[in-house]
Amino acid sequence: MDQDRTGQTLVIFLSARTAVDDPGYAAAAEEIAALAARQPGYRGVESTRGLDGFGITISFWADAASALAWRSHPRHSEIRELGRGRWYESYEVIVAEATRGYRWPG
Amino acid sequence: MDQDRTGQTLVIFLSARTAVDDPGYAAAAEEIAALAARQPGYRGVESTRGLDGFGITISFWADAASALAWRSHPRHSEIRELGRGRWYESYEVIVAEATRGYRWPG
Repeated sequence: MDQDRTGQTLVIFLSARTAVDDPGYAAAAEEIAALAARQPGYRGVESTRGLDGFGITISFWADAASALAWRSHPRHSEIRELGRGRWYESYEVIVAEATRGYRWPG
Repeated sequence: MDQDRTGQTLVIFLSARTAVDDPGYAAAAEEIAALAARQPGYRGVESTRGLDGFGITISFWADAASALAWRSHPRHSEIRELGRGRWYESYEVIVAEATRGYRWPG
């Protein structure tokens, strides 16, 4: 939560985790986070997951092009597909354009 | 995760909880969720918070006008302000327009 997000493009990943293969999931999540941070236009990530296994991850991008490149990145897509049914019971991806924002403390 | 979000407006609330007043916070969160669901243009909510106290709540709205009306709703604003320093160490609000989305299973 360290910059103004207005004008950035968000890739929002909502997912319900299965109860299995925590080590495999953790390794994949770490790889994906490191990969994202090396992509052009990367502006950060916020992520959380509750005890019920439902999680939300938002990655922030300079523009729509860099966000869509990330969503379609071959290794990113591969890991998302690998996770189907193994790590994820279900997931949703939403791409969105930030039109305004503010924070407290300012 | 029950509809296509493309074209909807998102109000994204990222917050770091303090460790105090769980009952007061829970009551306020319940009130706010019920209030949101009664507003015009409401299209649902997704929310999660991890053990570290960091949470993300996304409410979905039919259009920008209903999203901004919700962000500025007097009782909503009041509770957000009440929470400053009591329930929240910090928070960020981002309003965003969903440009595309997909889910698995489809």
